[in-house]
Amino acid sequence: MSGKLEEKINSLVDTLISDYGNDRTIDKTVTFDHPDKEKVIDIILRLRNIIYPGYFKNDRFNLYTVRSNISVQLEDIIHNLSQQISVVLRYNSDFENAPQHIIEQTAEEKTLAFLDKLPMIREYIATDVEAAFLGDPAAFNKEEIIFSYPGLFAILVNRIAHELHLLGVPLIPRIMTEHAHSVTGIDIHPGASIGRYFFIDHGTGIVIGETTEIGDNVKIYQGVTLGALSTRGGQLLKNRKRHPTIEDNVTIYSGASILGGETVIGHDAVIGGNAFITKSVPAGARVSIKNPELKVNFSSDKPVQQTELPQDEKWSESK
Amino acid sequence: MSGKLEEKINSLVDTLISDYGNDRTIDKTVTFDHPDKEKVIDIILRLRNIIYPGYFKNDRFNLYTVRSNISVQLEDIIHNLSQQISVVLRYNSDFENAPQHIIEQTAEEKTLAFLDKLPMIREYIATDVEAAFLGDPAAFNKEEIIFSYPGLFAILVNRIAHELHLLGVPLIPRIMTEHAHSVTGIDIHPGASIGRYFFIDHGTGIVIGETTEIGDNVKIYQGVTLGALSTRGGQLLKNRKRHPTIEDNVTIYSGASILGGETVIGHDAVIGGNAFITKSVPAGARVSIKNPELKVNFSSDKPVQQTELPQDEKWSESK
Amino acid sequence: MSGKLEEKINSLVDTLISDYGNDRTIDKTVTFDHPDKEKVIDIILRLRNIIYPGYFKNDRFNLYTVRSNISVQLEDIIHNLSQQISVVLRYNSDFENAPQHIIEQTAEEKTLAFLDKLPMIREYIATDVEAAFLGDPAAFNKEEIIFSYPGLFAILVNRIAHELHLLGVPLIPRIMTEHAHSVTGIDIHPGASIGRYFFIDHGTGIVIGETTEIGDNVKIYQGVTLGALSTRGGQLLKNRKRHPTIEDNVTIYSGASILGGETVIGHDAVIGGNAFITKSVPAGARVSIKNPELKVNFSSDKPVQQTELPQDEKWSESK
Repeated sequence: MSGKLEEKINSLVDTLISDYGNDRTIDKTVTFDHPDKEKVIDIILRLRNIIYPGYFKNDRFNLYTVRSNISVQLEDIIHNLSQQISVVLRYNSDFENAPQHIIEQTAEEKTLAFLDKLPMIREYIATDVEAAFLGDPAAFNKEEIIFSYPGLFAILVNRIAHELHLLGVPLIPRIMTEHAHSVTGIDIHPGASIGRYFFIDHGTGIVIGETTEIGDNVKIYQGVTLGALSTRGGQLLKNRKRHPTIEDNVTIYSGASILGGETVIGHDAVIGGNAFITKSVPAGARVSIKNPELKVNFSSDKPVQQTELPQDEKWSESK
Repeated sequence: MSGKLEEKINSLVDTLISDYGNDRTIDKTVTFDHPDKEKVIDIILRLRNIIYPGYFKNDRFNLYTVRSNISVQLEDIIHNLSQQISVVLRYNSDFENAPQHIIEQTAEEKTLAFLDKLPMIREYIATDVEAAFLGDPAAFNKEEIIFSYPGLFAILVNRIAHELHLLGVPLIPRIMTEHAHSVTGIDIHPGASIGRYFFIDHGTGIVIGETTEIGDNVKIYQGVTLGALSTRGGQLLKNRKRHPTIEDNVTIYSGASILGGETVIGHDAVIGGNAFITKSVPAGARVSIKNPELKVNFSSDKPVQQTELPQDEKWSESK
Repeated sequence: MSGKLEEKINSLVDTLISDYGNDRTIDKTVTFDHPDKEKVIDIILRLRNIIYPGYFKNDRFNLYTVRSNISVQLEDIIHNLSQQISVVLRYNSDFENAPQHIIEQTAEEKTLAFLDKLPMIREYIATDVEAAFLGDPAAFNKEEIIFSYPGLFAILVNRIAHELHLLGVPLIPRIMTEHAHSVTGIDIHPGASIGRYFFIDHGTGIVIGETTEIGDNVKIYQGVTLGALSTRGGQLLKNRKRHPTIEDNVTIYSGASILGGETVIGHDAVIGGNAFITKSVPAGARVSIKNPELKVNFSSDKPVQQTELPQDEKWSESK
């Protein structure tokens, strides 16, 4: 390296070290007290292997080795998840100054309490696979859904993250759901609670906010927002119910927005594509927007015409 | 490990093994008869190297080594793709109980029949690169498009997956297109057939359904849905034409939805942003929505005004 | 391998080699003059480590090793970024035929000029973290934002890519922002210039075009397009201002489209969800669409009713 370049590097380093002295959130240089994003993602994938024991590994094994395999994976999850929870518990004001052995014991307890939820998570996921198969004419079989449907992956990660969220684990649940968001384009906050037989079709652009409650047998399409009316209050709105409640058997077509913590979509309602809803909808209602009128014309070098195309309701059944 | 923890792990394992006895789709523990998602993705990337021989590798090579290189990659693809097809053919009821040598022979035949399509796929992709360059003022050059445009990647994967779909290969085509969906936010079903000079700009949120047919020289923007009117019939609608037909030279601006298996967008039509279309549109038509009226007001601590902003058609040409 | 299969492979190779003789952009077989996408992505991640020194590594280090660590990472970035810039400078007509030592010297100069911008980039990013925390009631703390918010990652990559873009580096900035687009669903062109305290909430589906200018303290939601009125002129429109200007303190809710190079959204304006805007909006204005009327009915097997649900403005404050 030329002396001039070396000098330049030294000067850059000096500038940066001095910049790190500004005491902003971004200036922290000590890394040991932060969660490890890659380990958190690895935990998701190991949990997925336990939830679907036969789908994401290559090695052939019999029932005996299933037992060994599950034991090994569980031990690994307990070790790593406890460790990550130990780290993030410090972010919780109750534990900020707790002795390390209390932190570690609490982390292990939360990890084991979470693992006790696995059969329930599996029970819910099994219903989600059913719902996707029944709801999608393009599904070749249920295996295809487990292998390739992004909606199912987003739901799986929400179901995992939601249980950790309920156990009061900070940061990790959100790192998990943002990983799913990155992979699928579906943004479900860990706080959202979701019933059985949930089906997301296509999914890109879906946003489901922190305090959303969703019943059983609900189906939503790409681009749907279950959001807050306004977040202008910022941190002042924390812990308030800001997102809607969706009761059982509701279908919400693509691009619809349903906003507000007091908004309830009654059971068996159908919300048409692009509807914008800020008030409760009664059970059994079929809500659609009067679609914006279409204007049709033809370029000047062709015979001039004006036509109006009639609009159908998006959710009308094909016969 | 403490005895208590060991006991707890054993009890968790017992619970899970017993849970796997429920005989649901998720309970399968034998993995050897499932496709390997990572191998399928690796096959896509190797095919991409063959389709663009000069773009995604670091090693410098001359024409002689191009030949060696292509041979090696082709052999690898033949080996792995045949193997993956062998596995998934069992999901096809015609082959469920076929002897293994018939499965393997059929898999190799389908692999070779697919590889024969590579020059045609390359011919189409070359036109897609042209269309992106001509259509996008932000494109610096054609190399930038090949390196970085997500729309081109989604189209490439559809063109590969569509040929495998036509050859009757189950599961693998969908695993491929869902990989592209994850990477790009563009969800094109392998069943969709797409003509030459196809250009997707930005692309996030696009959904193109299984039975869509798209002509030559079509251009679509982010958030466009080419979808079904309803999927309430679920599996009963399988194999029915549920998605629209888009003829040559059509442009569809962002956020538009075109729905239904009998909906035909005639050649040279232009569909404006956010249009919601469930009926056929004649050739040459320029369809736009009458945009929802804008309400404008100013907060109470400022002089009160009410103004109306005029709306232009989104597709009006800039001069 | 059977003789027949070997013959088939040879024939496939012959066909492909002959296909590569067509002299289209896709037919280039020499790879040494193309940028290396994986190296470019690695450079982003190393820059991220320098920008947030304490967040994305596992190893514990003290201030002394921060210095060593930063030095090592900077040298690595200088080496790799200079090398990649050397490669892409050839795409710039000014350097097409320049002697190699001029190319290399220029590349190193641009690399160092870029690195001088790091403290400024850090200053801006620190304000973005603040804005996200203040604007989002679901944010647990600022660390969570740095670890998991996709909007912040998209902004970080834009801030890096924009400086390289201003230094006249071709291709690499776009490869960077398309990587962020793939990871986040947020598509910000490197040409877009963005002020302090920028907050993107959720983000999937956002498109921000090449010539967009954004002031300080702007907040945008998922599905917002800051786009061109038309790109029908294709390459003829290159370098023209085609995208809007957003002044300070503007909020743009989800799904809104703001189009055109002469469109200016005045400071302190609020643009409601799904608004479609092609004309300038005065400072302080609150623009919302008159939401499409909702039609509500109930299926025939239930008592018939017709109701109209009133619509609120999406941006109305919750009280």
